[in-house]
Amino acid sequence: MKRVAIIMGSDSDLPIVNQAIETLSQFGVPTEVKIMSAHRTPDDVSAFSKSARENDFGVIIAAAGKAAHLAGVIAAYTTLPVIGIPIKSSTMDGLDALLSTVQMPGGIPVATVAIDGAKNAALLAIEMLAIEDADLAEKLAEHRINQSEEVRKKNESINN
Amino acid sequence: MKRVAIIMGSDSDLPIVNQAIETLSQFGVPTEVKIMSAHRTPDDVSAFSKSARENDFGVIIAAAGKAAHLAGVIAAYTTLPVIGIPIKSSTMDGLDALLSTVQMPGGIPVATVAIDGAKNAALLAIEMLAIEDADLAEKLAEHRINQSEEVRKKNESINN
Amino acid sequence: MKRVAIIMGSDSDLPIVNQAIETLSQFGVPTEVKIMSAHRTPDDVSAFSKSARENDFGVIIAAAGKAAHLAGVIAAYTTLPVIGIPIKSSTMDGLDALLSTVQMPGGIPVATVAIDGAKNAALLAIEMLAIEDADLAEKLAEHRINQSEEVRKKNESINN
Amino acid sequence: MKRVAIIMGSDSDLPIVNQAIETLSQFGVPTEVKIMSAHRTPDDVSAFSKSARENDFGVIIAAAGKAAHLAGVIAAYTTLPVIGIPIKSSTMDGLDALLSTVQMPGGIPVATVAIDGAKNAALLAIEMLAIEDADLAEKLAEHRINQSEEVRKKNESINN
Amino acid sequence: MKRVAIIMGSDSDLPIVNQAIETLSQFGVPTEVKIMSAHRTPDDVSAFSKSARENDFGVIIAAAGKAAHLAGVIAAYTTLPVIGIPIKSSTMDGLDALLSTVQMPGGIPVATVAIDGAKNAALLAIEMLAIEDADLAEKLAEHRINQSEEVRKKNESINN
Amino acid sequence: MKRVAIIMGSDSDLPIVNQAIETLSQFGVPTEVKIMSAHRTPDDVSAFSKSARENDFGVIIAAAGKAAHLAGVIAAYTTLPVIGIPIKSSTMDGLDALLSTVQMPGGIPVATVAIDGAKNAALLAIEMLAIEDADLAEKLAEHRINQSEEVRKKNESINN
Amino acid sequence: MKRVAIIMGSDSDLPIVNQAIETLSQFGVPTEVKIMSAHRTPDDVSAFSKSARENDFGVIIAAAGKAAHLAGVIAAYTTLPVIGIPIKSSTMDGLDALLSTVQMPGGIPVATVAIDGAKNAALLAIEMLAIEDADLAEKLAEHRINQSEEVRKKNESINN
Amino acid sequence: MKRVAIIMGSDSDLPIVNQAIETLSQFGVPTEVKIMSAHRTPDDVSAFSKSARENDFGVIIAAAGKAAHLAGVIAAYTTLPVIGIPIKSSTMDGLDALLSTVQMPGGIPVATVAIDGAKNAALLAIEMLAIEDADLAEKLAEHRINQSEEVRKKNESINN
Repeated sequence: MKRVAIIMGSDSDLPIVNQAIETLSQFGVPTEVKIMSAHRTPDDVSAFSKSARENDFGVIIAAAGKAAHLAGVIAAYTTLPVIGIPIKSSTMDGLDALLSTVQMPGGIPVATVAIDGAKNAALLAIEMLAIEDADLAEKLAEHRINQSEEVRKKNESINN
Repeated sequence: MKRVAIIMGSDSDLPIVNQAIETLSQFGVPTEVKIMSAHRTPDDVSAFSKSARENDFGVIIAAAGKAAHLAGVIAAYTTLPVIGIPIKSSTMDGLDALLSTVQMPGGIPVATVAIDGAKNAALLAIEMLAIEDADLAEKLAEHRINQSEEVRKKNESINN
Repeated sequence: MKRVAIIMGSDSDLPIVNQAIETLSQFGVPTEVKIMSAHRTPDDVSAFSKSARENDFGVIIAAAGKAAHLAGVIAAYTTLPVIGIPIKSSTMDGLDALLSTVQMPGGIPVATVAIDGAKNAALLAIEMLAIEDADLAEKLAEHRINQSEEVRKKNESINN
Repeated sequence: MKRVAIIMGSDSDLPIVNQAIETLSQFGVPTEVKIMSAHRTPDDVSAFSKSARENDFGVIIAAAGKAAHLAGVIAAYTTLPVIGIPIKSSTMDGLDALLSTVQMPGGIPVATVAIDGAKNAALLAIEMLAIEDADLAEKLAEHRINQSEEVRKKNESINN
Repeated sequence: MKRVAIIMGSDSDLPIVNQAIETLSQFGVPTEVKIMSAHRTPDDVSAFSKSARENDFGVIIAAAGKAAHLAGVIAAYTTLPVIGIPIKSSTMDGLDALLSTVQMPGGIPVATVAIDGAKNAALLAIEMLAIEDADLAEKLAEHRINQSEEVRKKNESINN
Repeated sequence: MKRVAIIMGSDSDLPIVNQAIETLSQFGVPTEVKIMSAHRTPDDVSAFSKSARENDFGVIIAAAGKAAHLAGVIAAYTTLPVIGIPIKSSTMDGLDALLSTVQMPGGIPVATVAIDGAKNAALLAIEMLAIEDADLAEKLAEHRINQSEEVRKKNESINN
Repeated sequence: MKRVAIIMGSDSDLPIVNQAIETLSQFGVPTEVKIMSAHRTPDDVSAFSKSARENDFGVIIAAAGKAAHLAGVIAAYTTLPVIGIPIKSSTMDGLDALLSTVQMPGGIPVATVAIDGAKNAALLAIEMLAIEDADLAEKLAEHRINQSEEVRKKNESINN
Repeated sequence: MKRVAIIMGSDSDLPIVNQAIETLSQFGVPTEVKIMSAHRTPDDVSAFSKSARENDFGVIIAAAGKAAHLAGVIAAYTTLPVIGIPIKSSTMDGLDALLSTVQMPGGIPVATVAIDGAKNAALLAIEMLAIEDADLAEKLAEHRINQSEEVRKKNESINN
């Protein structure tokens, strides 16, 4: 199976990003986690991104806050799908990171999830890998069923 | 190759969505276009979404404006990756559609592109299909080179 | 008397939603509370909504946060009035839920109240039921008088 | 059948409000249209609102722009359900009217629809009247079916 | 000297409003404080506002949060200058109250100060009363000088 | 009677500001109009503001767009009441000018009216001058009555 | 004198950027204009930025719209001061470009000017070059005087 | 070397501004810190700004919150580059200060950094001084290298 890379712009993003790491691990998807900054280590970012496909990555997840350029900069150097997680920081309630991540100009897409939406970033990566992988698709289907069951259990308990 | 479905909530979204249709056609990706509304034909949306994988779709693109529920509702019924295009309408400059599309709660992801970002939605779908398809990946790489060349030509012409 | 259904997308909405439950109980309006998610249990939501009128519900209140699709999805399946409560979550200060709930496209209305406005959702449901119910209308009138008296008492105490 | 009152703050709101008038007329709901301003004719607004129930109104629709106080002021004087239509004006893209209408404090609810959402305001009023009126509920169900058919026809025509 | 009325929509606004009360008291301006709600005691608000000028008030300060209609509703019933203080509440960071207060339609002005800007509301009221009152104008000039001196002292202490 | 000064930051503000000039002229209030910029002619602004009271001005109206500092800068140099009109420019829909005008820190108030609210700025200035001027107060009362009559006439014509 | 580089992300930015080119030319500052995209020609951007100082540039101006990464990406590769011009595009009124340009994380600054503020970007670049260049500082002082005179002439003409 | 002035509108800004003071001190840049208010000590601000260049300042940094006029007012009185730090205060999450600082009208630029971005303000000032100062440029280059190394160390530690 292709690997998923999770890149975060700063180690302060880790508490949020951990939800992505855990979800990918739950599904048994091989994952590599890196701290790289579009602004402080731009050459590392471009070197990693240019070689990501040949290094057997299938999807790249990038998490960053404020003027969150990381996902867009990675996307500029690879044709692998790049998933952007806008991280809420101390001002602007995450709107800055959301707009910096999602409003990409035509030609270089970034698949953006909710502010701090790390779990969904992982699920989206798995869905991409599952397009041609029936086993993984099956695991996703089971995950959905479990998820439904949890809601139903809560519904039952609220009425008792 | 898996097919891409393009669903729009209203035919008024077509001028924007056409950029996605053209881009997918340029890359030779088989595409099916549909008008279905999360609110006015919800049963059609759920029936389509539930059977999308077995009907050989690989990715679903959904475009909607205002309280744009379409992408999220489709995503609730399938584990295929769903790409949401928030469409700008007559008020709120597209912010309503963007937040309604991207701020999905944990468990059901939507891969959101820019407001009116139909071209990038198509490129993102192609990137997903190209994870395991070397030919398509090659076409994407060529597209990037052409894109760079266009920018360089404009750069040259501005200095002459 | 017709019953009021209160649906919430997640049990984390309960602290807010409780204000609606208490207000309806105060007015003696029969109420049924459910946890159902537009995204995690969509079939439950559509099944409930389609049969709500024949199951003797008169009004449905739906509370959800982030990309709050719940009220709109319920409204797509019923012609009963649906009241949406946008719930504030950890980012965007409730604006995402507000716009996702209120900006419904033409054809399927949602009666939206303030962010976290659960008490008003209940009062609005009671007002709807009281259109043709003189006793309930009387109770609403008394509630208003009590409400005015409370303000007047506070006004007096501030000046002493 | 109870009547529906449609109040607008200014005759400049008429092009939008006409969609509500037409929809109510389509459903055969008796309607009265008035121009009254919360700020320029406040006594008229309070006199009308206080006597609305005894004058056989069942629902009041109020449309206003900018600091849109009209719906809230009417709601302060009646326990009939009040539906607020925030009208977009020349600045702030309707956000001012939306927040002024929807963010009502606890105790006095306003059922808010989308910015410029006059058609949905009418449908919502009809849904309220149809809670106890099987004929009107039937008409709403037919309206939904027609609405679905229109979407399906557009879907067919796009694929031919 | 004309009196200043300070009206607040709820006693929860008191911690902010106290800054206005203290400032007016510091300047020796006769002040009357009231809790009255545009929505819960609308008749009290209109009765008070209509007779405010003959009751020897010169300026009215009104503080309210959320869909803050109070200042506008008072202004509709008097030609005395009305100063609005938008109060920040639990959602929307005060933007709802600001827009509801400041975006008044042509014909009925409200003099709006900053969100939670109670001290400035008082100073503005005093400036209005001081237009024709040389003593009060003198006090304002002294207040400004003291204010400058405080800044200068802080500047000195930071450099020592 | 004290005079009213109307200062605008640029002659491009004149189409909006004219509504203030006309309203003041209608009420027979002596008015002086000036173009002065907080940024391009700051010394003129401070010289004017410092001497405004002794030059027999009673109120200063200041109109500016974008980072609208004009009203605040004038207010820093005078204890006369300063009314700020935020002017909408080509970006940000007037929100920049509104926040730059209204969010004044404690100590220096600006009485802010709606974005482009020049007519209300004039009415507010007149209300301030009318605190101690019974004739002017009478004119304001008449203006309100005429305003109400206009609304009532429109109401009648819509029902015929 | 050091040269100023003006980089724009797309030739559609040229109508705005021209104001910067003209202003720099007016002051006789040697300027080089380029079209380079952070996303479509990222290697060109990094190559240019890394060698900008040794190629005798003193300041770099970067203009881009939407998720405007250009200024931040250039700044990541050089320690020359980088001035960012956020360009308004078809959605979000320039707020996306503003936040993407200005909200840079600690370590890599971008000197941001107003949305579409190309003239000020040029003036700011000249101010930077004039820190150690008395002749250029003199020209700036003259420019300010001329600017003041223009405002004063407009002020005179409005009063005649 | 030219000196850098750091002006803050209030001593409550000091916790943020300290990051600028420390960074300038780290680079050995002579710095002068002052508390001066555009609104409470406007004459001090204009006197300081007019003589800043002759007093051997090269760059001025100005920090202010709310309707943050300080940077713009300073810029009106000097042709030295002025860097504005918008400070987040208790409401509006810093958006008010950002727009008041960055949206300067044509003719008077302010180099705006992120909300609370004091460290970057200092780095930007140093970059300006380093245009013609090879030693300082060298220090900036080293700072960048250290910054990259820190990110790389964190990256290594996360993978161990």
